[in-house]
Amino acid sequence: ITDFSSNINFVKPNVAMPENLDVLHAYNSDGYAVLKAAISDKYGVKPENIELYNGASAAIFSLFAHLKPKSVTLHAPIYSEYKKAAAIVGAQICNSGELSVFVNPSTPDGVLREITPHSQTIVDESFLDFTDGASLMGEAEDNKELYIVKSLTKYYGAAGVRVGFVASHGENIARLGASEPLWKLSSFDAYYMSEALKDGGFDGRSRTQNDANRELLRGVLDECGLFERVYDGKANFLLAKLRNINAQTLQTHLAKHKILVRNCANFDTLDDSYVRFAVKETRHIETLKEALCGL
Amino acid sequence: ITDFSSNINFVKPNVAMPENLDVLHAYNSDGYAVLKAAISDKYGVKPENIELYNGASAAIFSLFAHLKPKSVTLHAPIYSEYKKAAAIVGAQICNSGELSVFVNPSTPDGVLREITPHSQTIVDESFLDFTDGASLMGEAEDNKELYIVKSLTKYYGAAGVRVGFVASHGENIARLGASEPLWKLSSFDAYYMSEALKDGGFDGRSRTQNDANRELLRGVLDECGLFERVYDGKANFLLAKLRNINAQTLQTHLAKHKILVRNCANFDTLDDSYVRFAVKETRHIETLKEALCGL
Repeated sequence: ITDFSSNINFVKPNVAMPENLDVLHAYNSDGYAVLKAAISDKYGVKPENIELYNGASAAIFSLFAHLKPKSVTLHAPIYSEYKKAAAIVGAQICNSGELSVFVNPSTPDGVLREITPHSQTIVDESFLDFTDGASLMGEAEDNKELYIVKSLTKYYGAAGVRVGFVASHGENIARLGASEPLWKLSSFDAYYMSEALKDGGFDGRSRTQNDANRELLRGVLDECGLFERVYDGKANFLLAKLRNINAQTLQTHLAKHKILVRNCANFDTLDDSYVRFAVKETRHIETLKEALCGL
Repeated sequence: ITDFSSNINFVKPNVAMPENLDVLHAYNSDGYAVLKAAISDKYGVKPENIELYNGASAAIFSLFAHLKPKSVTLHAPIYSEYKKAAAIVGAQICNSGELSVFVNPSTPDGVLREITPHSQTIVDESFLDFTDGASLMGEAEDNKELYIVKSLTKYYGAAGVRVGFVASHGENIARLGASEPLWKLSSFDAYYMSEALKDGGFDGRSRTQNDANRELLRGVLDECGLFERVYDGKANFLLAKLRNINAQTLQTHLAKHKILVRNCANFDTLDDSYVRFAVKETRHIETLKEALCGL
């Protein structure tokens, strides 16, 4: 199966397998200090301004449970995790909520946003590393109203490694941490991500290969004639609007070629004429090209 | 450092390192089906009656957030996680709470309990595998008022592997799952625990070695003359009441020998005359013996 529906970086950081399982046998009694230091070095946010989570979804759910907003504005398009988190805490989704949520670049269109945080704001920067966009991470330390959510599993190419974090003012982080278990991250995952963050050549490799293959993918989508529009996405995926058929028809056709793509019907403001393609290896894009040409 | 304070099984299951990191690169799109099946086979509870968590602490916190008890009875002695979970949701701790919590065998004394669930009850069986005690796991499927909490990291000897679960009636599990992120477990941890659960010889090895070394440890504690009482614990730790000195004095002395033990002052109904020793390898018990004889 060639999975264009999953937006995990196809470029991987260099991480050596640990020599044995010793890393698993003890508690991380340092509170994941090595991982926090690696995040701190990479993203310029102090360890005391970081709360770690088992991935961005866990971070989002905990953040909503903590903030207990009565109303929330979800700046669409946005992934369904935020809608689910709002529903769990009974927050009303409206246009002028007490909490605002932005995803930058947004998904599934991959478009960079200019965000000026006002009142309580969550900015999800899980895909920002793929782009030239400016991070608000530096502001989070001083702004009590600002929470940055970041998944590390997507950019660092390992969906099965569940590590994400929230960066915010120290007082917010202390309050978030008070409701969290002492040990929650897998030691193996903490090891993997610490090593991945220290791979100095990864950003360059990831950028070069993703930029090249995003344009290759864009060319295939432009040329096959099936799409009315391909969005100017900057992340590792492209959103495209179908011309004559709907997403289900495309999925059914591509399934015969063992290719998966994302139907974007369940994103607010979109419908089943939208599909999202992840940027993948060249050979997979060639496979996709052949399948699309047959339609 | 010889750590008698951490009650992780010193006997380890046979788990081979995976050959490469491929296991980490994809989502567990099967919803951790392999792991749930392994738990199901081992503990006789159906997959649909299991909700997985990043360790027992995460399970406890989520369970309290879900049940939102106004009052809770914590059957002491009990670890502080339950008190913390009660505090987070604002539950009053009293003698006839709407929710009852038992740990079986209890910690830090390791004594087996006879429990008849009445009204809403949580039974924590994280250390039950070390003993001959009867599990209530089989009742959980049919009893809507019963929740079994189980850490797998302790018995299966890997503190850094964050896997625990709650077993309960299908309706309860469906409700718990609705507030949980789709992906939360580390794929590596899921792999490790699935393999550990399938190691057919592990229970026998663990029982033989823990029983032998528990008695060796008991002998050392009995003979050194420092203790008024050593409890008849059945798990992989022993609770002992000091005769003339307090736990801090003992800890200070043992620290010179680079030995850590658990001061039980923060367990309800206990004070700083109580210390807990984990069952460890024979050579570590010899090290402890020498250190205790010097007091």
